[in-house]
Amino acid sequence: MHIKINSIDTNFSTLSDSSSIPKQKTDLNNSELNETNSRRNSNDGTISTNKNVSIYGYDQIKHKKRIRKRESTVSGKRVAYENFTTIDWNHDFAKDRNRRNKVKKRKSLKGRIYLIYDACQSWILVILIGIVTGLLAAFIAISADWISDIKEGHCKSGFYLNRKFCCWGNPGYQCPDWEKWSDFFNIHHQFLKGIVNLFMYTFIACLATFIAAYLVREFAPYSAGSGIPEVKTILGGFVIKKFLGMRTLIMKCIGLSLSVGAGLSVGKEGPLVHVGCCVGNLCSRLFSKFNNNSARLREALSAASAAGVSVAFGAPIGGVLFSLEEVSYYFPMKTLWRSFLSALTGALTLQLMNPFRSGKVVLFQVAYTRIWHIFELPIYILLGIIGGLYGAFFIKMNMKVVKLRKFSWLKKYPIQEVFVVTLITSIISYGFLFLRVSMTQLISNLFRECSELESDFGGLCKKTQIKSTIFMLLIALVLKIIMTIFTFGIRVPAGIFVPSLAVGALIGRIVGILMQLWQESHPDLWIFSSCNPDVQCVTPGVYAFIGAAAALGGVTRMTVSTTVIMFELTGSLSYVLPVMVTVMVSKWIGDAFDKDSIYDALIDLNQYPFLDSKRDYYSDAIVSDIMTKVDNLIVLPAIGLTINDIENILQEYPFQGFPIVNNTYDKLLIGYIGRSELRYTIDQIEDIENVDGTIQCYFTKKSPDAYGIGDPNQQQKFLDLRPWIDSTPYTITPNYKVVKVLELFKKIGLRHVIIVRRGKLVGLLNKKDLLRYLSTLKTE
Amino acid sequence: MHIKINSIDTNFSTLSDSSSIPKQKTDLNNSELNETNSRRNSNDGTISTNKNVSIYGYDQIKHKKRIRKRESTVSGKRVAYENFTTIDWNHDFAKDRNRRNKVKKRKSLKGRIYLIYDACQSWILVILIGIVTGLLAAFIAISADWISDIKEGHCKSGFYLNRKFCCWGNPGYQCPDWEKWSDFFNIHHQFLKGIVNLFMYTFIACLATFIAAYLVREFAPYSAGSGIPEVKTILGGFVIKKFLGMRTLIMKCIGLSLSVGAGLSVGKEGPLVHVGCCVGNLCSRLFSKFNNNSARLREALSAASAAGVSVAFGAPIGGVLFSLEEVSYYFPMKTLWRSFLSALTGALTLQLMNPFRSGKVVLFQVAYTRIWHIFELPIYILLGIIGGLYGAFFIKMNMKVVKLRKFSWLKKYPIQEVFVVTLITSIISYGFLFLRVSMTQLISNLFRECSELESDFGGLCKKTQIKSTIFMLLIALVLKIIMTIFTFGIRVPAGIFVPSLAVGALIGRIVGILMQLWQESHPDLWIFSSCNPDVQCVTPGVYAFIGAAAALGGVTRMTVSTTVIMFELTGSLSYVLPVMVTVMVSKWIGDAFDKDSIYDALIDLNQYPFLDSKRDYYSDAIVSDIMTKVDNLIVLPAIGLTINDIENILQEYPFQGFPIVNNTYDKLLIGYIGRSELRYTIDQIEDIENVDGTIQCYFTKKSPDAYGIGDPNQQQKFLDLRPWIDSTPYTITPNYKVVKVLELFKKIGLRHVIIVRRGKLVGLLNKKDLLRYLSTLKTE
Repeated sequence: MHIKINSIDTNFSTLSDSSSIPKQKTDLNNSELNETNSRRNSNDGTISTNKNVSIYGYDQIKHKKRIRKRESTVSGKRVAYENFTTIDWNHDFAKDRNRRNKVKKRKSLKGRIYLIYDACQSWILVILIGIVTGLLAAFIAISADWISDIKEGHCKSGFYLNRKFCCWGNPGYQCPDWEKWSDFFNIHHQFLKGIVNLFMYTFIACLATFIAAYLVREFAPYSAGSGIPEVKTILGGFVIKKFLGMRTLIMKCIGLSLSVGAGLSVGKEGPLVHVGCCVGNLCSRLFSKFNNNSARLREALSAASAAGVSVAFGAPIGGVLFSLEEVSYYFPMKTLWRSFLSALTGALTLQLMNPFRSGKVVLFQVAYTRIWHIFELPIYILLGIIGGLYGAFFIKMNMKVVKLRKFSWLKKYPIQEVFVVTLITSIISYGFLFLRVSMTQLISNLFRECSELESDFGGLCKKTQIKSTIFMLLIALVLKIIMTIFTFGIRVPAGIFVPSLAVGALIGRIVGILMQLWQESHPDLWIFSSCNPDVQCVTPGVYAFIGAAAALGGVTRMTVSTTVIMFELTGSLSYVLPVMVTVMVSKWIGDAFDKDSIYDALIDLNQYPFLDSKRDYYSDAIVSDIMTKVDNLIVLPAIGLTINDIENILQEYPFQGFPIVNNTYDKLLIGYIGRSELRYTIDQIEDIENVDGTIQCYFTKKSPDAYGIGDPNQQQKFLDLRPWIDSTPYTITPNYKVVKVLELFKKIGLRHVIIVRRGKLVGLLNKKDLLRYLSTLKTE
Repeated sequence: MHIKINSIDTNFSTLSDSSSIPKQKTDLNNSELNETNSRRNSNDGTISTNKNVSIYGYDQIKHKKRIRKRESTVSGKRVAYENFTTIDWNHDFAKDRNRRNKVKKRKSLKGRIYLIYDACQSWILVILIGIVTGLLAAFIAISADWISDIKEGHCKSGFYLNRKFCCWGNPGYQCPDWEKWSDFFNIHHQFLKGIVNLFMYTFIACLATFIAAYLVREFAPYSAGSGIPEVKTILGGFVIKKFLGMRTLIMKCIGLSLSVGAGLSVGKEGPLVHVGCCVGNLCSRLFSKFNNNSARLREALSAASAAGVSVAFGAPIGGVLFSLEEVSYYFPMKTLWRSFLSALTGALTLQLMNPFRSGKVVLFQVAYTRIWHIFELPIYILLGIIGGLYGAFFIKMNMKVVKLRKFSWLKKYPIQEVFVVTLITSIISYGFLFLRVSMTQLISNLFRECSELESDFGGLCKKTQIKSTIFMLLIALVLKIIMTIFTFGIRVPAGIFVPSLAVGALIGRIVGILMQLWQESHPDLWIFSSCNPDVQCVTPGVYAFIGAAAALGGVTRMTVSTTVIMFELTGSLSYVLPVMVTVMVSKWIGDAFDKDSIYDALIDLNQYPFLDSKRDYYSDAIVSDIMTKVDNLIVLPAIGLTINDIENILQEYPFQGFPIVNNTYDKLLIGYIGRSELRYTIDQIEDIENVDGTIQCYFTKKSPDAYGIGDPNQQQKFLDLRPWIDSTPYTITPNYKVVKVLELFKKIGLRHVIIVRRGKLVGLLNKKDLLRYLSTLKTE
């Protein structure tokens, strides 16, 4: 045994999930022909289901010399990734290239048809994702609406109908079929009526969130929260099993309907990205191209998150840009086009489903008829500043609450917390019109021009009571901010998009009303000279619209996506420039406090292994300062290890993989083998009955006798592990600067890099160690 | 002399542009203190203006051993890139990181202020780019308008006024100040009038394009054509000097006004990207951060191209997406935000300038009042198919014409060709209303609903003469296609955006009118059941709009950008989904014929060294198959070369750089030095009077005496070239697959990669050789 037995590396140590590995047994006595074929196919980088592992006698080894040199360039076969590990983008791309190469080489008719199918797979997949996500979004929208309405009463013609459908065809507020709870319980006393309605309102809300919280805790803990930070981490190349599974999907959909319907200060829009990604992940299982390739899967997930935003806001282009700007890590042009298609299909599906029977996908349709004036620009910039400040403030406060929730006694009582938050929210909201209506209704009313509002909404347009309106808006604003800070992060599915829009719209409307007052009281001021005296000059609805964009920009720090989403939300393009200005200012102001968006802050807090490509690091360190030195690595010699030795190493050390060297004295690097692959091979061998644990393994091109092992007279058996080796791992020299290596990790998507000096192994640096080092840099 | 003297590499061999290098002389007798300081600062990767090169005696070398180990990790100092070479992204990023690192370390007040300025530099730059591009776009628009109008007549109240401004304030077509040429020449005979007007129309057009072509040929040949393929190549990391210079900018602006004003079938929108990039390049010279760093410069150019499209169409978001989807090679988030700001500033400037006095940036304002019906979707898809086919056809035909122009006798007569094309175009256009009006007017009229049209445009809305209208549209379509095919590529500034939109709009309007006819003649068909009988069901203007998107998509193969540009062009968001469907279909159909967009096709034709990140290659080859083998490389030994030797090597071999090895027997790789750097150093030394050509140079950490050279008793002098070496070049082993290396080139932006086996140099692969190999793959 030449193996070094030290340990420093601290990777996750879950054992390989063997259920995902084809469990085909292999014969001890393969015919030579099969052997050669299997070898010849071994550079496809995929797991062929037979002849994965083979043991053969010395006489067969000589034939191996005939293997074309080319086969030494394989990146090694690979089995599925373990949970909580980072993926190796580069290997997966290589695997996919090999697969396509193989498909391309099939010249038969069947092969050609398969080639066409193969080329279409991704398009079919993203269309499927779009359709399913669209259907789910419609379901969530309808059921959340129903729960929201049922809090106030029920429909006599069918309990499953929400107020809108119950009253379909009845003009105005006349609706005989819709019965308030006080009427249902036959209460006539005016005060009691109020009490009963309040009680039912609160009771149903609490019941809904209780169910949501319970279901989440019991069946799918991953479905709580927004999901976007985790999706970002997964798209960045991390494996979190079950996060995108069927259970999570179901619970997310149900929980989302319940928490949004209950009237919590949460949106359903952000979590739809998570829903989309679950759909993406589940649909991908139908297509081999994506199911067996974690990097390709992430391309599909990027498209899925575009579909999520697309159906959330009816904003297909906004969805694509959201996927690009916020969640995706690797976003080549192909993914752009697929996201485009996926978002398109989702929006089309939603439009055809027409869940709101409005015939529109646009959520807050407005039609601003007036153009903006130059004198308004400073006010827009002011809104941008306020939005940026709000974003920074919200992130800071919410992080404090989240930390409290995560690290104090509170963490033991998630359901109780949800209950209390709902109770308080419901009681407060019941008294305020601005808070009682659903947030989309609130925003939609705040965006509108007074001339467009059907009935006066909370006195927004009554000039006579302008002071009290402003006061009410201010109170609603403060309450909304507090509720949002405490609500975002509780253990039910909950998004932050719409609450941010609501806060911003409230701010904007207040500013807009004040501006309008000023202009109307001093119409002769020189700054208002561009106003046409016959027409209303200042439109408070526009300020609400721009304020909403500013707040969303401040919280999420997106620019292009925020702008486009705002347009698609309202269907109005006349305010492109003001919105762009505001969003840019809001981002700058927010970034001046902290560069992290709410999602990045959550990623940091949860210490997800996410390599943020937006962040710059400054360091003079070189790789040899932070790498795991060769003395602390477990290295495998190319020849000389028995199956038992490998079994022992695997059981003793949790490392994700092992460098292979010619021998433990020279330590000339030969390749790298992943833990999962080694585990899989050894498991297969050990499944064979009566296997001899002293069978020697070899990882090298040279036949074992070159090393003086294996007496040609004895039919000694060897285990050939070469197909599982990555014989061209990325290597660097120890004097590379860390920041230069960081670029490699970011751009190539490495999982680890091997450090050699003149061919000799001197160390290894993996992504997690690099991230750990970078986090120390950041705290400095 | 141990130097290998073979040659295979065939890089461009222009000598270094020494004008861009600070020509500071250095003393032969530096004080030791200065020496050490200069050494200590040597890892900044930039050219410090003093003590760049130094020769010192042996006694000083010992002190060098005290140099911290860290300094061996520099990527080497670098001087400016030579013309027609590819840039080394990675080195430039490292250089920038070092620069920022240095700035961050300055703790004085001045340092802090500089830090803030440094952080703002890029924002200031992109704002500046936006403003200047906006101003230039306004200038081009106004002057093209004027030339276009002057063809038909002149303004009596001022020859510099175009028709619109001349007639400002006059209602309808009443305009006493505007005088037709026939009136100017006092001609009364009806037939002669027509002849004179036609003559003047043709004469002024030909004169304008003649001037344009002459100016282009004489002063700035690079200003011809669209410029987008070259901009793409430059952004992909290639150096084409003067392509973005002041002369090119001026000639492009003047030529563009002339060629567009002359009524050629060209647009000014695409070339505005080139204008934007020229502005970007020139403005960057004001900021050291960008001026000295080719990779950072490209980030600014990405933002500039966004500003270009933004001001071209009044489409700021479309501009950002165009930059992302079509022209940019490296587009990190930072660039996205900067492009956003640049596009925003450009559009704001244009709006404030208000060159058309319409108060809008929207070019073809439409307000479609009706929603689309499901039965229209197949027709939209059909339009997508037609658009895709047109795109493929146009690219194929235009390439044939371009090839003819480039490789036949025609290439000797560019000005004559322009003249002939203009002559034919003018004569044909004069007779047809659809072709005679400017293309933007044509498109704008085709997009409009009949109810919106001020006066009936060419009988578009006359139900009585529908057949002749369709016939006229068809003829206009055919002529437009032919003219565009022959025009795009002539030696005047010319874009392809607007001609594509015009062709598409013509196709769409024809289909729309036919569709409307069908629906109106069979209103009871089941497919039309969703139509409201009281309202017009089919809007031909919408079909024109969608057809235009399809044709633009077919020619440029953009999806998201096309969609967004179309919305921003028209200010109408109600048709998001149909446009998305159409654009996607158009792209698919076009791609089915050839994956190349018009710009990619031009890049291929001109054999620009552009590594298309969208294209996939399949190859089993490994690096050792295509690399330049060590025997064919000029390698420099770390010690033993005299200044005269290096001078000889530089004069004899045109290679872009030289690997440095410990000695020419072992060939252990020590680093890499670029040609320009070596040239610069040697030039500096040779400027020193009485320099001894036999002075030894060394590239290694070890002092020369370790190699047995340099007698300590003699005060022998050495030239230290270490600061100029990249001591951590990217290295790979020879068994890497080419496709894996390709990823490195694409993602890291390498210029070359060095191939080593166990520390020993075995070869080198540079970007151009790789591109050459890839082009053979493609033709297979």
